[in-house]
Amino acid sequence: MTLTKKKLVLAFMILLAASAAMIARDAVAPAGKTMTIAEVMAAAGPEEWRPLDPENTLYLELANGRVVIELAPAFAPLHAANVRALAREKYYDGLAILRVQDNYVVQWGDPEEENPAKARKILKARATLPAEFDRPLDDKIPFTPLPDGDVFAPEVGFSAGFPVARDRKQGRMWLAHGYGMVGAARGNASDSGGGAQLYVVIGQAPRHLDRNITLLGRVLQGMELLASLPRGGGAMGFYDTPEQMIPRRSVRVDADVPPAGRAELEVLRTDSETFRRLIEARRNRREEWFLQPAGRIDLGIMTVPLRDRK
Amino acid sequence: MTLTKKKLVLAFMILLAASAAMIARDAVAPAGKTMTIAEVMAAAGPEEWRPLDPENTLYLELANGRVVIELAPAFAPLHAANVRALAREKYYDGLAILRVQDNYVVQWGDPEEENPAKARKILKARATLPAEFDRPLDDKIPFTPLPDGDVFAPEVGFSAGFPVARDRKQGRMWLAHGYGMVGAARGNASDSGGGAQLYVVIGQAPRHLDRNITLLGRVLQGMELLASLPRGGGAMGFYDTPEQMIPRRSVRVDADVPPAGRAELEVLRTDSETFRRLIEARRNRREEWFLQPAGRIDLGIMTVPLRDRK
Repeated sequence: MTLTKKKLVLAFMILLAASAAMIARDAVAPAGKTMTIAEVMAAAGPEEWRPLDPENTLYLELANGRVVIELAPAFAPLHAANVRALAREKYYDGLAILRVQDNYVVQWGDPEEENPAKARKILKARATLPAEFDRPLDDKIPFTPLPDGDVFAPEVGFSAGFPVARDRKQGRMWLAHGYGMVGAARGNASDSGGGAQLYVVIGQAPRHLDRNITLLGRVLQGMELLASLPRGGGAMGFYDTPEQMIPRRSVRVDADVPPAGRAELEVLRTDSETFRRLIEARRNRREEWFLQPAGRIDLGIMTVPLRDRK
Repeated sequence: MTLTKKKLVLAFMILLAASAAMIARDAVAPAGKTMTIAEVMAAAGPEEWRPLDPENTLYLELANGRVVIELAPAFAPLHAANVRALAREKYYDGLAILRVQDNYVVQWGDPEEENPAKARKILKARATLPAEFDRPLDDKIPFTPLPDGDVFAPEVGFSAGFPVARDRKQGRMWLAHGYGMVGAARGNASDSGGGAQLYVVIGQAPRHLDRNITLLGRVLQGMELLASLPRGGGAMGFYDTPEQMIPRRSVRVDADVPPAGRAELEVLRTDSETFRRLIEARRNRREEWFLQPAGRIDLGIMTVPLRDRK
């Protein structure tokens, strides 16, 4: 077998950082051809990247590393504020990941929740909140559509870095479930969640949950720490014993963290020309490995580039 | 917080085994309502389940358990036969998982492939094969369509347990990428793969790979063993050092395994009435937790029930 390991790769899925490419800023593809992902990213201008808002950035600290979460107050203002408040009163610190269900979710909370004597108390934050499953469609909120349609909604695309679905007839828009999206677990009543128990999607986009549960943010960095956790052996992936649960050291709001401990991440603006070009580059892959570019892309597979300034 | 942990679940994603439900075989939903998943599965008849074909069932043995793979000779006859031949000459035994890329693939092969002196020799099997990216559309192959469309193909559904896309205009059909699908890694040339290096999808369905690479089967059981592996730190998820690679003990064809060592799995026939009912039950979730059933389902999230007779 003469093929080398490096040649036997599937495809480039990691979006190349702009700094890694060698194409000049104003590079454009030959007439009639879309650019490659590397060409698109190399041509991105500094103004097309945005820093994170310190009030909307959370650090979930696990024994093996940090997970960075961006909150989505434009879609879930009550939940975003409450998760921030819970983090600030240190509600989450020392609690645990209770459930890891393969191809579905990681979920964390208080292992002693059913034991009133030992359950963690919520101080100033709220235990439950009204549902924020969707919101009025507002054309003032930037929206970059994907051109190839969607099985679940009339229109899908990205708003401020988040995957979003819209229904103009109903006048509603909502965050869409997909890999890395963060939501507030709830019981059967729509207003029984509030953010004390959060979940993160670690598998195929469970779009049937859209508008059934409140999504409030997205994991920007550290998904591999969550997605590689041992799956729970109990029903729905709950861990069978307390010893199996994954302790969570702390959750902090970026604004409260000393400068040396802060991430220096930047996210590509999804209302930028580069993001629009990236959609085209992902629809029509021109890298040599691709023999039949799909000419299409769906919401679940489209990702938003991130770079680390450190 | 008065909600119990058990109540604060997201949804039932694990399809309930028929034996676990208490609805009689002939149960039907009230007029005008779809059945729940539990009701559908409880009503499945024994003839709607099929055993595995011993020649098309592979056991990948890892240190922490067994992964069961079903081959798809109707779509990739050359690759299925070659993977069987490679297993029978013990080509795979002792080789390793080389790459785990988050939200993408696990890939295994020979760590010494680039070193001719040490590389594992292929004896009777073939090192490379012509591509089997798609095949002629054949209406004699059972096909159960999903009714809600697809972003990538004119038609999608299931054939003999596999997710399949069809294009009647082009007269072609092909296996579709999704969670647990198994394919043959290749270099840039279409005929540079052959099954010596295999990959398994562990994340969001990478449908842009469809018709660019040969899919040859699907993991039926043990996905959680692959999906929870540590992600590789190198480019595209390759492990940086040999020590990180995950050894593979062996790959065996079910037909060659003594009876005591065989799995006794059954797969729900995807051309059965129960599977068609299940599609409806998944489109319109009637479990109490769901407040707004989607009324739709996509290929990536639809799963095929499996049961263990042991």
